Amino acid sequence: MKNFYFHNPTKVFFGKGEVEKVGKLVKEYGNTVLLVYGKSSIKKMGLYDKVVNLLEKEDIKIIDFGGIDPNPRIESIREGAELCKKHKVDVVLAVGGGSTIDASKGIASAALYDGDPWDFYSYKVESVGALPIASILTLAATGSEMNAGSVVTNFETKEKNGWGSPYTNPKFSILDPVNTFTVSKHQTGCGVVDALTHVYEFYFSNEDAYLNDRVCEGIMKTIIHYGPIALKNPEDYEARANLMFGSTLALNGVSGFAKDFEGFNHITEHVLSAFYDIAHADGLSVLAPHWMEYILSDKTVNKFYEFAVNVWGVHPGKDKMAIAKEGIKRVSEYYKSLDMPLYLKDLNIINPPLDEIVDKTLHRETIGRYVALTKEDVKKILTNAL
Amino acid sequence: MKNFYFHNPTKVFFGKGEVEKVGKLVKEYGNTVLLVYGKSSIKKMGLYDKVVNLLEKEDIKIIDFGGIDPNPRIESIREGAELCKKHKVDVVLAVGGGSTIDASKGIASAALYDGDPWDFYSYKVESVGALPIASILTLAATGSEMNAGSVVTNFETKEKNGWGSPYTNPKFSILDPVNTFTVSKHQTGCGVVDALTHVYEFYFSNEDAYLNDRVCEGIMKTIIHYGPIALKNPEDYEARANLMFGSTLALNGVSGFAKDFEGFNHITEHVLSAFYDIAHADGLSVLAPHWMEYILSDKTVNKFYEFAVNVWGVHPGKDKMAIAKEGIKRVSEYYKSLDMPLYLKDLNIINPPLDEIVDKTLHRETIGRYVALTKEDVKKILTNAL
Repeated sequence: MKNFYFHNPTKVFFGKGEVEKVGKLVKEYGNTVLLVYGKSSIKKMGLYDKVVNLLEKEDIKIIDFGGIDPNPRIESIREGAELCKKHKVDVVLAVGGGSTIDASKGIASAALYDGDPWDFYSYKVESVGALPIASILTLAATGSEMNAGSVVTNFETKEKNGWGSPYTNPKFSILDPVNTFTVSKHQTGCGVVDALTHVYEFYFSNEDAYLNDRVCEGIMKTIIHYGPIALKNPEDYEARANLMFGSTLALNGVSGFAKDFEGFNHITEHVLSAFYDIAHADGLSVLAPHWMEYILSDKTVNKFYEFAVNVWGVHPGKDKMAIAKEGIKRVSEYYKSLDMPLYLKDLNIINPPLDEIVDKTLHRETIGRYVALTKEDVKKILTNAL
Repeated sequence: MKNFYFHNPTKVFFGKGEVEKVGKLVKEYGNTVLLVYGKSSIKKMGLYDKVVNLLEKEDIKIIDFGGIDPNPRIESIREGAELCKKHKVDVVLAVGGGSTIDASKGIASAALYDGDPWDFYSYKVESVGALPIASILTLAATGSEMNAGSVVTNFETKEKNGWGSPYTNPKFSILDPVNTFTVSKHQTGCGVVDALTHVYEFYFSNEDAYLNDRVCEGIMKTIIHYGPIALKNPEDYEARANLMFGSTLALNGVSGFAKDFEGFNHITEHVLSAFYDIAHADGLSVLAPHWMEYILSDKTVNKFYEFAVNVWGVHPGKDKMAIAKEGIKRVSEYYKSLDMPLYLKDLNIINPPLDEIVDKTLHRETIGRYVALTKEDVKKILTNAL
């Protein structure tokens, strides 16, 4: 087991009705809040009005900032930060999914910075601190509610970059599964794939982390189990609850304390998204099974065998390679059953500029910490995924 | 899944050599440290000298306070708190196992309190704050390194009570598995049983917490796997590392976020310890299998079936009751293989005053949140364990 540092100070308030606490919780951090949200969904479901009422009851001044995109743009970060400066905002409260929370982390940081916020995401400036961030989660997927990470897109430079700082963990996050009842079938499938891929990125990594792998298996089994149940009955509380906190555990440190983040799927998908503005998880859904097939070898077969048997319930046996392949097949079949895409053409990506995409994907000689892949490898995987 | 609050701010520095950081880490919290430890083991292994050197290098004044007992006494809390007050201690640093850390939590709290520290443990006073607490762990067992709990014994009143406050989570804990290489076979077995029992107390509880149960299974499988390896080769780093962080996860919130603490094993064992000053885990080792046998019924058979199949690898099948029984049998066999006791007589407890013990165990009508047990039930379990 490798040396590691584990620290996650975010307070989680989980369960039905916990939103009622938001006014008093925000009040602990100040009197003026930037209320960040996406499109109209939180208004349709009545959450917007509820939150506004709860904040106003505590005499908290609300600066309204809606319209965050599913792949949040650097322009939104700039705009939100200006509002914070202008209105002397004390707290940034995200109400939404990972994109809204990610944007809030950028905004809260940029509010204390005089330069351009893209400096963070282009790794020119580490951090100068951040306003307190909080969240009310409405989508089980990214884990952003309990980690420091923030992914933002710059369509000018065709870059979608992840960044975080010691200041960008939310102070608190409110997770009420009921707030995910209205999530569409496609978004629910996306959440399942996103959370699973977070776990893959750790699971398929360092081999000497038994405890870490067993915990990962528990998280994956849960998400796999409840994905179809939530698709079939969107108001199944147990399914929504397990998917919600499962997604949190998939990227809050618990799934990867003793592992390195493999990286291939996320880095490659970020490039695809920056080219095509596809949903993050749609890209992951296409990439992961092709990547697994490609990196399966005598060197990795034991890990994929464990994956097949312990996660997908494939019957154990002597032919490890066959069983490993069966495990990967189960991933594709499962994604298909969720109506998630398996090929780039399913996303209407036809004849993509492969060389350009591959160039953007590899900043160094290779990509991937578990199996190092060259440009040629990545091009082959993308070709298999056409 | 029930509503829950999850928050664990302790910083963990895990791995070989991490102790080197202790001087600079302590310095963040002040210049005078109370160095709390147990008997001679940390001196024998050279850890004491190393820590003293690292602290002195940062010009930190050390107030030495050794001699904490395996079941820490309220007298030690009183004495340590007096030292803190007298020397204006800034930080309490525990170097040792759970008892030393537990004692440090009491001391750090009592240092800011004018009354008697037993007021905390007898639930007369909640908390008045605490000095910053930190730990260097030398025994994988209790999880105290990453939670707020503290168990202290009052032999005058024959009470061993657990208590904690929002101030008693260690600020940081250093977990170097190498520091557990010299732990004796018996103490290693005790650690395994202690950590497993923490998980049992959550696992055998609320039935609607799929994610929580899958994570518990991962933790239990890891501890069960590495227990015998550490016993056979005490210097196996992977075994010690997995047992160490496995024990942490067993009681840091990750194993029980959506569950209630069952309680029977811990409460009953605390009474046994207060009567006989036995090692906590020796008591747990005797109690848990008899408790499992007793509470197995048509109502609980599904949970015990899961336990048998998912944790102990019993082959699935139709006769759930037989498979559940086989799982419990595996627990006893496993404990026996670790040379842990299965009966009270193995601990030289002969003809115990059962009625008196049962009276101390039940403060209310029943004990146990999963299966509520009456005085009569508890007496029967103890009789089976004679």
